[in-house]
Parts: sequence; C-alpha cells; structure tokens
Amino acid sequence: MSVSVLDHPILAGLLGDREIAAFFSVEAELEAMLDFEAALAGAEAEKSIIPEAAGKAIADAIAGFRPDVEKLAQATARDGVVVPELVRQLRAAVGKPHSGHVHFGATSQDVIDTGFALRIGKALDLLQARIDMLVERLGELDLRDGANPVMAHTRMQAAIEVPASRKISSWREPLLRHRARLSTVRKEIAVLTFGGAAGTLDKLGSTGEQVTARMAKRLGLGIVSHARHSERDGQAELAGWLSLVTGSLGKMGADIALAAQSKIGEIRLKGGGVSSAMPHKVNPVGAEVLVTLARFNATLVSGMHQALVHENERSGAAWTLEWMLLPQMAVATGAALRTAIDLIDNIEFSAKGD
Amino acid sequence: MSVSVLDHPILAGLLGDREIAAFFSVEAELEAMLDFEAALAGAEAEKSIIPEAAGKAIADAIAGFRPDVEKLAQATARDGVVVPELVRQLRAAVGKPHSGHVHFGATSQDVIDTGFALRIGKALDLLQARIDMLVERLGELDLRDGANPVMAHTRMQAAIEVPASRKISSWREPLLRHRARLSTVRKEIAVLTFGGAAGTLDKLGSTGEQVTARMAKRLGLGIVSHARHSERDGQAELAGWLSLVTGSLGKMGADIALAAQSKIGEIRLKGGGVSSAMPHKVNPVGAEVLVTLARFNATLVSGMHQALVHENERSGAAWTLEWMLLPQMAVATGAALRTAIDLIDNIEFSAKGD
Amino acid sequence: MSVSVLDHPILAGLLGDREIAAFFSVEAELEAMLDFEAALAGAEAEKSIIPEAAGKAIADAIAGFRPDVEKLAQATARDGVVVPELVRQLRAAVGKPHSGHVHFGATSQDVIDTGFALRIGKALDLLQARIDMLVERLGELDLRDGANPVMAHTRMQAAIEVPASRKISSWREPLLRHRARLSTVRKEIAVLTFGGAAGTLDKLGSTGEQVTARMAKRLGLGIVSHARHSERDGQAELAGWLSLVTGSLGKMGADIALAAQSKIGEIRLKGGGVSSAMPHKVNPVGAEVLVTLARFNATLVSGMHQALVHENERSGAAWTLEWMLLPQMAVATGAALRTAIDLIDNIEFSAKGD
Amino acid sequence: MSVSVLDHPILAGLLGDREIAAFFSVEAELEAMLDFEAALAGAEAEKSIIPEAAGKAIADAIAGFRPDVEKLAQATARDGVVVPELVRQLRAAVGKPHSGHVHFGATSQDVIDTGFALRIGKALDLLQARIDMLVERLGELDLRDGANPVMAHTRMQAAIEVPASRKISSWREPLLRHRARLSTVRKEIAVLTFGGAAGTLDKLGSTGEQVTARMAKRLGLGIVSHARHSERDGQAELAGWLSLVTGSLGKMGADIALAAQSKIGEIRLKGGGVSSAMPHKVNPVGAEVLVTLARFNATLVSGMHQALVHENERSGAAWTLEWMLLPQMAVATGAALRTAIDLIDNIEFSAKGD
Repeated sequence: MSVSVLDHPILAGLLGDREIAAFFSVEAELEAMLDFEAALAGAEAEKSIIPEAAGKAIADAIAGFRPDVEKLAQATARDGVVVPELVRQLRAAVGKPHSGHVHFGATSQDVIDTGFALRIGKALDLLQARIDMLVERLGELDLRDGANPVMAHTRMQAAIEVPASRKISSWREPLLRHRARLSTVRKEIAVLTFGGAAGTLDKLGSTGEQVTARMAKRLGLGIVSHARHSERDGQAELAGWLSLVTGSLGKMGADIALAAQSKIGEIRLKGGGVSSAMPHKVNPVGAEVLVTLARFNATLVSGMHQALVHENERSGAAWTLEWMLLPQMAVATGAALRTAIDLIDNIEFSAKGD
Repeated sequence: MSVSVLDHPILAGLLGDREIAAFFSVEAELEAMLDFEAALAGAEAEKSIIPEAAGKAIADAIAGFRPDVEKLAQATARDGVVVPELVRQLRAAVGKPHSGHVHFGATSQDVIDTGFALRIGKALDLLQARIDMLVERLGELDLRDGANPVMAHTRMQAAIEVPASRKISSWREPLLRHRARLSTVRKEIAVLTFGGAAGTLDKLGSTGEQVTARMAKRLGLGIVSHARHSERDGQAELAGWLSLVTGSLGKMGADIALAAQSKIGEIRLKGGGVSSAMPHKVNPVGAEVLVTLARFNATLVSGMHQALVHENERSGAAWTLEWMLLPQMAVATGAALRTAIDLIDNIEFSAKGD
Repeated sequence: MSVSVLDHPILAGLLGDREIAAFFSVEAELEAMLDFEAALAGAEAEKSIIPEAAGKAIADAIAGFRPDVEKLAQATARDGVVVPELVRQLRAAVGKPHSGHVHFGATSQDVIDTGFALRIGKALDLLQARIDMLVERLGELDLRDGANPVMAHTRMQAAIEVPASRKISSWREPLLRHRARLSTVRKEIAVLTFGGAAGTLDKLGSTGEQVTARMAKRLGLGIVSHARHSERDGQAELAGWLSLVTGSLGKMGADIALAAQSKIGEIRLKGGGVSSAMPHKVNPVGAEVLVTLARFNATLVSGMHQALVHENERSGAAWTLEWMLLPQMAVATGAALRTAIDLIDNIEFSAKGD
Repeated sequence: MSVSVLDHPILAGLLGDREIAAFFSVEAELEAMLDFEAALAGAEAEKSIIPEAAGKAIADAIAGFRPDVEKLAQATARDGVVVPELVRQLRAAVGKPHSGHVHFGATSQDVIDTGFALRIGKALDLLQARIDMLVERLGELDLRDGANPVMAHTRMQAAIEVPASRKISSWREPLLRHRARLSTVRKEIAVLTFGGAAGTLDKLGSTGEQVTARMAKRLGLGIVSHARHSERDGQAELAGWLSLVTGSLGKMGADIALAAQSKIGEIRLKGGGVSSAMPHKVNPVGAEVLVTLARFNATLVSGMHQALVHENERSGAAWTLEWMLLPQMAVATGAALRTAIDLIDNIEFSAKGD
C-alpha cells in the first residue's frame, strides 16, 4: 500500500529512503523478533532455565522458520501485537516436546522493543555514516567556494557581505553536534528489553540478571538495569535527535532555496526539478524537500513526547503510538540526509556574490 | 514497504483501513490524475481550445494508458512532482499530431489537487457511512443497556451513579455534530483545482471560466472562483475534521478501557486481545487503538496547520508536507471508525453498574 | 508576570493584543463566573427551585462582591479549580439564611465553561470585526495597486507575471471563508454549560430544562441538549478556526517578507523595524510576526486535539490543558489580525512589478 | 495580564512556578541584557577596542540605569526586538562623549540570546535541584512502601502483583537519566552569543576571539566557536529535555491517578482537591496536573523543532517563535517538579496492595 509517501512506489524516491526503510520491512522486523527468541532460548539453555535440547531445538526451528504473515495479520488485529501469534507459530514449528520452552519468561513488549533496538541500531549506523559524508562534502564545498562573498540576510533583508564559508559553517557545525549527540542517544535506545509480564522477570527467579547479560551479548545490545517497558525517554530522545537532524537540514534547505531565487542567484543549482507548465524553470526541489522533511519530523516529535505518558506497566495506547511515528521519523531523516548530500553536490556559490 | 503501520502487511489490519487506503493507492492516484487530463481535454475540445480530434485522441489514449511507474518514480525524485513525467508519457501515448494538446493550460498542482479531491470525496462518503453506522449501533446499545447504572467519574474519582445512557450519548452526540460539519468540510475540499502556471489560467484567455465549469461537471466536483494553489484552508479544515472524529472516538476508547478495568468491570468486552505472557487476560485492544489513533491525528493536524504558511503562488515545501500527512490522517480516521463499530458491537454494560 | 510574551509588558505590544487579552483578565474571568451564578440563582428562583428571597439576596451579593483573589489562588492550587473557593466566598457574602442556595445544582465545570463561553463570544465579535476590516483594507489595496504587475513565484522561482490583484485575492478570499466558518464555530462554543455533578442536572429533577433555558436567555448564550463536560469538539473546533485564521495571515506575511526582499522589491514597506546593528535596514517585522503567530497557533492546535481524549465525565488533565492553550490562541489570533491590518496599511506594490 | 495560566494570579499557583517564572520577569530580562552590555564594554575596554574611560562610563551608567519600559514596549512593537531602543536609552544614560561606544560590534540577537542563556542557566540549576529532591523523596517512599504489593497493569488490565518498589523505580530512574542528560543540554545553551550583525564580528577584526573569551568569563558562560544566531539546536534540545522531564512526571501522574481510583485504592492521597458539587470527593489534582503539564510541553516542543528552520543569518519569524515557547516550557517543567515533590510527599501505597 502507499498511504504514506515513505512507502509509495512513486513518491518514496523523493521523500523516502530505500536503505533506512529496509530496516522497517516486515522481513527485517520478523527476523529481529526471531533473533530475540533465539537469543532468549540460547541464554536460558546456557543457564539451564530450559533444557539444552530445547535451546537447540528452538535455534534449529528459527533457522528455517517462515512465519505465516497472513495469520499474523489476522491475530494482530485482535491481539494488538503480533507476538502471541508469532510465538504460537514458532511453537508449532518447534514441536513437541520443546515447544513449551519457546518465549519462556518473556512478554510481547520484550520482543517488539528489542526487535526495534536491533534495527534502529543499524539504522543509526547508516545515518551516522551519512552525516559524516555530508560533513565531508560541506568541507569540500567550503574549500572550493568558501571565499566567495555572499550577502548575509537578517530578517529577510540584506545585511552585510560575508564569505560563503560563514554560511557553510552554519550548516556543518550543527551536524557535528548531532554527530556527538548520537552516542548518548544510542546508549539509551540500542538496548535489550527483557522484563517478562510485569517487568520483573518473575519467572526467572535469581537467574534473571545472568540470562539478561547473555542475551544482550548474543544480540550486541546494551544492558540496562531493568526492562523499560513504561519508561520511554529513550524513544522520545531518539525522536528528538532525528528531528534535530532534519531541522538543521531544513534550515540548510531554506537557505539554499532563498539563495537560489531567480533574482538573488547567489547559489546556482544543477539538476533541479522540471515544471509541467514552465519547462524552462529549474526548481530547487531538493532544498524544498529538506524543509518539508524538517517540518514533518517537527510535527511527529510531538506525538513521541505525548507517548511518554505511558500509564502503568504497559500502555497499549502509548506504545502503539510510537510504532506509528518512530519508523517514519527515521526514514524521513535518512531521506533528508540523502537529499542533502545530493543537493550539496549540485550547488555552487556564485563567484560575485550575486 | 511498510514504514508506516498503515501500509504494513501485519499492522495495517490493526491500525489501518483497507477500504480508505484503497483511495490512496498508486493506481487510484494515477487514475484520478488521468481523469483530470481527460476532463481537461474534453472540456477544452468542447470550447474549441484544442481540436475536437485532439480531445478524442486524448480520451482514447487515456482509456488504454498504462503509465510506466518506475519511470514516474525516477522523474519524481528529480522534479518533486509526478506530473511532468506523467504528461510526457501520456503525450507519447497520444502521439502526433495531438500530443501537444495534452495538459494544455494546466499545471502540476491542478492535476494533483484535483486528483486528491476526487479521491477524498469518495473517502468522505465512506467515512460518513461509517459514522452513520456507528451512530446507529450506539443507538442500539443505548436501547439495550442505557438503563443500566454506571458510576460517573470526575477527575478519576467516582462521583454519582448515572444511567449508561448518559455515557453513551456523550459518545454519540459529537458524532452527530461531526456528521453535520462534514458538508461544510466537503464543500471546500471536493472541488476542482484549475489555475494553470500561476493560478490565472493565462493560456485560456476568456474561456477559462467556461472550461472550468465543464471540467467540474465532468468530474463531479465543486467549482470555486479560482484555483486555490496557495490557499490551503480547505486542506487544513479537512485535517481538523478528521482529527475531531478520531478525537471523539479516542474519548470513547478511553472511557471503555477505564470502565473495563479488572476492578471496575462496568463494561464487559467480548473478543479482546490475547497476551503472550498472560493468556488469561482480555485486553481492551480496540479501545486502546482508538486512543492511539486519536493522538496520532492530533499530532499530525499540527503539520497541516503549519502547511498553511504556503509562500507565494506555490510552495513545494508546504504542499509536499500535505502529501505526507493528509492520506495518513484519512486512513487513521477510517481505521478508528471501523474499530469503534467493532468495539461497540462487542461491549456490554454490566447490569449492576459494577 | 511575563512568562508568556502575550502577558509581557514589553513584548505584548508586538505579539499580544490588549483588547482580546482583556477578555482573559482575572477580572473578566471572575465577572463572567459570577454572571453564571447570578443567572443560575435568578432562573432557579423563577422556577421556585430556590426561594425568591434567596435569588434576590444572591443577586444583591454578587452586585457588590469582591472576591479575595489571594485566597482563590491558594485554594485553586489545592482544588485544581477556582470554583469551590469562589462559591465559598460568595456564600459568605450572601450570608444566612440564603447562602446554601448559591451554586445550587451546578458544578465547577458549569461555571468555568460558561464563563469562557461568555468571554469568547465577545472575543469572536472583535475578531470578526477585524477580519471585516482587514478584508476591506485588502479591497482598497487591490483597488489602488491591483493592476501592478508582480512576478508569480512557484517553488521559490520566478514563474510568470500576474497582476498584484491575483496575489491580494489569495490573501483576502481565505478570510472570507473564515468569516463564513465563524458562525458554525460560534454556535458550538458560545453556549451555556449546565449539567451539575455528572452532567445530568440530578438535583433539578424535571425542571432542569426550563432552568437551563432561562439561564441561557439571561446570559445570551445558546442552548445545547445537555452539558458537554466531556465532549470538547466545540473547543477543538474553535482552536482549529483560530489557527486557520493565523495560518492564512502567516501565508500573507511570508509573501510580503519575500516580496520585500532587498533584491526583489516588489513590495515596499513603510514603518518597518529598526536594527540595532544596521540602522539603515527596514525590517519586515509585521510580516515576520504573522509567520511566527501562525506557527505558534499551528503548534498549540495539536494540544487542543489531544484534549479531545477527555476521559470519563470530567477529566482534570484534559480540561486543564484547554486552559493552557485556548486563551493564548485567541490572543495570538487577535494580534495577528491587528498586525495584518497595520501591515496592509503600510505596504505598496511597486508599479513596475519589481 | 493573565492570558497564560503561567502568569495568572489565580492559576499560576496551580500550573505555574513562582521561582522559575522569576527568571522570565521583565526585570530579570533587562538585567541580563544589561549584564551583556556591561561585559561587552568591559571586555572591549580591556582590549582597547573602546577607550578605558568609555568602559568605565558604561559600567557606571548601567549600575544606576532604569530603562523606560513603556518606551521599550512602543519601540519593540515597531522593531520586533527590544534591543535598539534599550541601547538608545542606555546611550542617553551614558551620555557624551562615550555613548557611541555602547553596544559596539554587537547585534540584537547577541543581547537577547545571551540574556536568555544567563537566565536559563540559573533556571536549570533550580530544576536540577528539584530533580535531586524528587529522586530523594522517591527513594524515601521506596524505603517506606516499596515492599507493599501492587497490581501491575498492562493494557489497562490487572496482570500480576509486583512490589511497589518496581513502580517507584519506573518513576525514579528516568529522572536519573534526565539528570545525566542535563549537563549535555546545558553545555549547548548556557553559552555566550556574540557575533555582530552577521555573525562574523566584522567590527572587531582580529580581536574578536579575545573579546569573546573575556566576555564569557565575565558572564560565567561557555564559549562556542562562533555565534549560533541561526543554529538553534541548543534551544530545541533544551525544549526536548524539558519535555522529557515533564513527560516522565506525566507518566507518574497518570499512574497515581489510576492507582488512586475509588475502586482501585492502591494509592491513598492526602490533601487532594475539593469539588464544588461533591465536597466528599478527594480529587487527585496534583496527579492530573502532571499529565496536563506533560501534554502541554509535548505540544510546545513541536514548535521549537519547527523553529529549527531558521532561514538565513537571522530569522525574525523563527527566532520570535522561540520566545513564545521556551519560557513557558521551562516554567511548566518547574511547576511539574514542584507538583511532583508535593504529590510524592502526600501519597502512600496501601499495605494490602488494594
């Protein structure tokens, strides 16, 4: 389907991002959830919470497991979450006598949140690499055009001439700060969630901590003191970071669109968009898209903060809202970085400053 | 792809809506845009703006036309809008000597906005029918359970007992008002957009008004005094209406989730969701989803109001933002109404009030 | 205090509005609440719900009543709403034997919501008058400058020349539509709220409807079928309308700031702002403020839609959120209209189109 | 005035915060701006940018300077910013021959942004102290009631019993993380802004860096590589942090309101609010207010992210939007922490778990 432009066969090339979106495909999602179940069974077998043979049987079953997506969809419409049916199917695949050991001690949110953590971790790697690339390109642009004079504009009026370098650095430096912020953000989101029904790992007794440590190691995720089922600051902080990135790129886009105005001409665009009514025009499409994506994420970040009011030990309402917002924000950020890199490759500051 | 839960093979059954989403499929979108081009050519032929033979040739070509979606995607990534490439493909399909008459006097925004109007008009019909159905079901619930006593709660504390009827009417009456508001909303959105490059129909001279009238008639859309390329109050008002509907349903969902709490038990749920950790629980999934969808639309409506700041004669930035938000809001509203109808069919007020 | 710029001794002249703010002063608020209590006592005395002498005594007491604001503040910090203490003070002022008849059958929300309705009704009158005035000024501007050519810009690039009239009408016509929408908005907000503890007027028995009718008449407010304590679509719709108005003015502001750019010069500003660093600049302050106010209301409207999720018969959380948002939105709208009128009085379209 | 509840004589006691609001009084604001001018003159005198006598004369004048607030308001309504008139008044106070050395090389945004930095730094100290106090109180609550059993609720349904300690730690741990995040936030916001007209300190030549260092030292602010006039990530990050804090407290408030429901009774409230219609009720006012403040900040944070799209070297539109949002967010956060501390002091977990 194509309700969201980020999933749209035509518009996703403009506003979406194939690489980041891949982390939010159903396939990647199911794979990550099964990675959780495999790590759980492996760790529990190591600690003799479940029989070694069960751990082996579950790992084998997962290796060749193809969930029935249609049935997952039907059950999710009823259960509000895919995990109960996924576990049911996985248990059927494992078969007797080990099926009862699947998902032992875990709850749906453990699976979903950890599955998200696994994927967002990789997505953040990619976003980081793009930030680095964009910073580099801006450095090259600065080397080439930085000495050209441009008119500084304050309150939409010409102020005084400055070197283009000044403008370029106002685009680059926030990116360096976002780059630095990322390690903090990652630390709170790329973590294992494992708490069981009410966040207390009640079924694991004294071994909870050790199982958790082993699972985290298997999955390459950070460990936190307990499952943050209802503490969603990591998610909201991630959303804020994504929106900081798109916001800074939106500022760059707005600057470029203004500098490329027909009568201003301080920036020349190569490869802008075509108009259906006026084929001679060169539209600053990429620059405008950066503004759009900035305002999109600036809109959605609000919902992620609303979702902090996550009542009790698990709020279906607040948790589900995150699912509706975070993947879109991540993909929009990927799209903005991709667009920005392409845009910077295709602009030049006029030598005369106008 | 499945970045948005509304397009997600597993989650769309929970949070999306197949019927409303169908209006936002690529197929429906292309069809609606081609309907615009057909109506344009037909009306222009009638008024001899283009040769009658050209009108016929364009209509024939459109009837059998299959756009190359991959090429549309590539061009859109560059142009920021699908129309230039779509027109190019259509012209190729029309062939000489009539190809030059395709899209005469129109601009991309005419095609996109009218295409949206055609589809949202039908989507609103469906939403209206669902509101009517939900109002009816609430009436039936009232007839059956309305006399049962329930505890009114103010500020989360028990206040005094009231008949369930009072609570049911607080769910139903806002729907009746939304129903009444819909005709106003529809009047400003289900309209033809036809303005040409700068909204003045500059290429049509004195015939602009007559061509517009004929096009509107062919398309079954309302006529407005001129193309509202940069006046987006109709879109923002639509977004507001969609969010009013989901907001009222969110209130109903919150009420039901509260009344169905284990220790309150004023409402009993049939067919709630299953938990992966606690199979005995019956989760008020539909009620929670209503809250989620309400908060989702309440979040997105902000972006639609930001998009009112639509600079100049056409803002790529603000216009594109609408594309990112409105279809999702419409589908979320469809999902909320569908969920609400199902939920009301599956609740009963306890006879004793607790 | 001056936490909000709308209350700020220095900034309120720029971003606030003295006349609209007056409706949200403590004095106006207390007066409106006392008007409710007077109308209640009067109507109840007419229908013999309370003794005629009590009605008279209450009216007399209210006429000379000066609430102790400090005590109101202290009690509100505890009670979450001012009404219990206000009623206590009023009862003390009425004295024996009639004090017990004060506020009979009413609840805090009746007083607060009706008090708001009384004031917003007058505020809407003023906003409407300003819209009318702005429409008129735009008409005069059109008469004077409408034939001047201006460059239409699409996607931030020069497109084709159009008469200034086209641009002016894109500013004026949304205002006419907002004007038309206002009567619908007003109908749902300028209403009496009278429902008692749980919205059922339980203490008034069969006379509820008649007392309601008499109160509404005394207060000049509309009657609705029952108190909408938990149905907040009227409030959210009002917020949407306010944001539609500021959004359309924000578009006008953005257009003017762009057209007044140093190198564009299609619009000349009289009386812009002074810069501390560059005294020669003329800044399009009013135009920018319109954009600011548009984005402010576009932000706040989201919270008003979140507040639709108003659980149970009265949600302290959701209701209080309205108090934090709606007055600011109304004042911002007043400020935008005032600023817009002043701005239109101080621009002229260049005769040469550039 | 009292448009905002945060400035409201009656409501600010409930929803505002006297201590944090004090940093946003006009007096504090003017004082901070004059501190900037004094530090500027002092540093410039040290580096012989201005005569030593001028530095002395400016310092002396500032010491006894009382701005004419009414004139400041009038000029601000025209200039969009208070600084030009403030500098004019200050120059008059300094008098000949030194008046021309006032504000040398600086621009309005330097004064405003630095003035804000000075005040928010102190406000953050206070917020931090309150977080510490709240963490401590939660620790005490845990010691006293942590072993009491409470029912964990997932998806609004009773799940399994857990110790109250588990719930309390889900309130406390996010606060510890916010505490840790604060140093990062502070580093980017409690900084000197000094860039001159276009951010290049063009009037200071080679001494810019040294003057900046001396000013920062005098003001106790951090130094950044150049003025971030148009890079607003520090402001948006601050807003995000404020909303993270209120969001986590909103979760706590929601939990407490749910646990204090009449039929749940897992938490008992001392000192709740009084109802005007039902004097026997004890309303969880503080708990609800926490939800309100969370949703308020979650709404406003969106506007701060919109303001990241800060075009060119200074955007009047985007910058002014910050003024409308940030002070309110800071005060709301102060109010939430104050309310939370008071609430925790007034709850107890029922010994029996229900």
